Amino acid sequence: MTYRMTELIATKREGKALTQEQLFWIIDSYTDDELPDYQMSSFLMAVLFQGMDDVELGCWTDAMLSSGVVLDLSGSPLPKVGKHSTGGVGDKTSMALAPLVAACGVAVPKISGRGLGHSGGTLDKLESIPGFTTELDLGRFTRQLEDIGIVLASQSEELVPADRRIYSLRDATGTVPSLPLIASSIMSKKLAEDLDALVLDVKVGSGAFTKDVEEARFLAATMVSIGRSYGTPVVVLLTSMDQPLGVEVGNANEVAESIAVLRGEGPADIVELTMALGVEMLVAAGIGDAEQAGGLLEAALASGAALEKFGELIAAQGGDPAVLDDPTLLPAAPQTTDITSPLAGTIARCDALTIGRAAVRLGAGRETKEDEIDHGVGITLHAKVGDEVSAGAPLATVRYRDADHLAASLEILDSAWGFSAEPQEPVPVILGEVR
Amino acid sequence: MTYRMTELIATKREGKALTQEQLFWIIDSYTDDELPDYQMSSFLMAVLFQGMDDVELGCWTDAMLSSGVVLDLSGSPLPKVGKHSTGGVGDKTSMALAPLVAACGVAVPKISGRGLGHSGGTLDKLESIPGFTTELDLGRFTRQLEDIGIVLASQSEELVPADRRIYSLRDATGTVPSLPLIASSIMSKKLAEDLDALVLDVKVGSGAFTKDVEEARFLAATMVSIGRSYGTPVVVLLTSMDQPLGVEVGNANEVAESIAVLRGEGPADIVELTMALGVEMLVAAGIGDAEQAGGLLEAALASGAALEKFGELIAAQGGDPAVLDDPTLLPAAPQTTDITSPLAGTIARCDALTIGRAAVRLGAGRETKEDEIDHGVGITLHAKVGDEVSAGAPLATVRYRDADHLAASLEILDSAWGFSAEPQEPVPVILGEVR
Repeated sequence: MTYRMTELIATKREGKALTQEQLFWIIDSYTDDELPDYQMSSFLMAVLFQGMDDVELGCWTDAMLSSGVVLDLSGSPLPKVGKHSTGGVGDKTSMALAPLVAACGVAVPKISGRGLGHSGGTLDKLESIPGFTTELDLGRFTRQLEDIGIVLASQSEELVPADRRIYSLRDATGTVPSLPLIASSIMSKKLAEDLDALVLDVKVGSGAFTKDVEEARFLAATMVSIGRSYGTPVVVLLTSMDQPLGVEVGNANEVAESIAVLRGEGPADIVELTMALGVEMLVAAGIGDAEQAGGLLEAALASGAALEKFGELIAAQGGDPAVLDDPTLLPAAPQTTDITSPLAGTIARCDALTIGRAAVRLGAGRETKEDEIDHGVGITLHAKVGDEVSAGAPLATVRYRDADHLAASLEILDSAWGFSAEPQEPVPVILGEVR
Repeated sequence: MTYRMTELIATKREGKALTQEQLFWIIDSYTDDELPDYQMSSFLMAVLFQGMDDVELGCWTDAMLSSGVVLDLSGSPLPKVGKHSTGGVGDKTSMALAPLVAACGVAVPKISGRGLGHSGGTLDKLESIPGFTTELDLGRFTRQLEDIGIVLASQSEELVPADRRIYSLRDATGTVPSLPLIASSIMSKKLAEDLDALVLDVKVGSGAFTKDVEEARFLAATMVSIGRSYGTPVVVLLTSMDQPLGVEVGNANEVAESIAVLRGEGPADIVELTMALGVEMLVAAGIGDAEQAGGLLEAALASGAALEKFGELIAAQGGDPAVLDDPTLLPAAPQTTDITSPLAGTIARCDALTIGRAAVRLGAGRETKEDEIDHGVGITLHAKVGDEVSAGAPLATVRYRDADHLAASLEILDSAWGFSAEPQEPVPVILGEVR
């Protein structure tokens, strides 16, 4: 059966449901290069406005999953637990969390994404490490998981090729913040990973795709339900993304901060989140209860086993593990400038979305899907919500490549902070959970 | 100033207004090939859902108009009156109307469009005539208008190039039925024609982009208001498009029917509409009052002057005027089949949208913007609303190229007709007017 794409776009645009056959046809045709990007992007925008019902969403996810092969990781002796975050600004959690959990005896076969909209991507960040490759074929992926219990790689062409292409198109066409597109993208990738269990971090707030807790809870429940239909247990933490996580935003910047976390020197918010997600992953793997899991994670940090596991991962994927001891090996743009506080007071707002957009303008993210990432630019925050600042104190240090990028970034960056004369409650990291 | 297109898409997606600078930047960047089709198409879908306010619409129209040159037709001695229809199924009115009005001493410098969605385009239809070219450079356009008082041509690259490209992209991306996009597309083209006045035919009904009279009235008022801000008087007739106009749908089919109209042998509905629009055009040109105008039009038909003017037009644009006497010179696909009535009764519905879509599936319209039109396929209706049919009587004759196209077309075509045991009122042609 073949369809007229303009008719299917019109059907969705008018708020009607598409059939299983039609949804499979769209995914298959796009993957086979028979559907041009410009038709897919207007279709995706129509989905963003009109949504998908549960039946459509299941079909769409299934069509994505069956656009490629599914991993067979049954040779790995350890329980396999996946982790995924819906993305935010400064969310580098996976880079420390995956080695930490793997150091505790859980296999982490993680397929990550690239920067999407204003939020960074783990692959782009990891590629800051000299020599590090995220492009592994399935054989190498499987062997590495069996050997060292951890892989952080991009989707290969064989694995969910539909999602790989749609993800990149959405990034460039303003069609990222759609709940069904987010849920199906995440779940198709994770279901292809042959996992025993999955822990999700659904972000909530200005820098997240879901702006309020109810919406996030709905997205979480949608993904738990998709997981259930495939027999994969899914646990979701709802976590705050009103301000960036940690203090570093940008690719090399965030690698450096992840190393700090593994050295026990990370900022409190990212450490808290890393430990909470780690506990969920260990418990889901059947390693013990929450208290036992917490103890194992603390020990792996203190002994250096987690840092060592990150070094193994870097070496296995062609990177130079010397960055763990010498962060100056990471790329760094040549110039920096500080932006300073216009007044004295307490920080009431440190807006993740604005800071994420400012980082994209610096070159840390993509404007169109052909754009190159500049790994060496970024923003280091010196003031977050609840911090007291004096007039003229630095709010952030911006590392930049050239004056044009800097100007574009600064045009919006200083509107990220809000001030108050009153003390401010610090922002909680974890807002809820869905199982 | 340069912008991030993803940010502008997000702004519109969230229902916020864009600035004049931003709207000009989008049009200019797209026209200069700096904005990919896939970003433009998701933006257009966001506009379809979120609309544009009056200020945005004015800026968008202005940006389209200033993407190219504006005609200078001041050398033409006659009053210049434009005509445009918002498009429907079987709407071949311009092909008879323009020569008829030109035969009465009004210059008609008409830039027409191509097929858009399920509705055909005058250019595609005219190109059925062997040798006929619609691609005239501006010099030839101007000279032909001075010589014979009529031109039916495509937009040259110099004239509103932005609209030319956006129109074609909308057609392939399900972003046709947006009031601001329709209004700005029409008015930018018409304002570039250096007209003294403009008569618009806004279609209402299943086969039109506006489904009800109130929406059509709003579109009409929007265009009258854009015209006023440029000092161009605009008159709008609101006309019915629940069923196709006339009995022919398809490119060569509709040329043949237009010739019949000029011979005084056209179906009643299309003749009524042609005369009503002709009266408005003559009155707008200052030729006389409505009664005088009607008399002039009747005389031009009866004397053969209107048919002769069509022949002059065809010859001036490289076509073979012998088609006027011998319609077998028009392309015709080799095979025909009839679809027949399943029961006896009165036709209660003869759905324009369904028939238009069925014609596209035959090859008479475009699925993607790269598609070629098949000029020789089409549908001839034998039963319209109010007609009585016996069981087994032919409802339509389908002229087709091959079995695949036929099957795709028939799959939907027979759902176009509805039947009743009661007599049905004939559908009125003219529903209202806006001045």
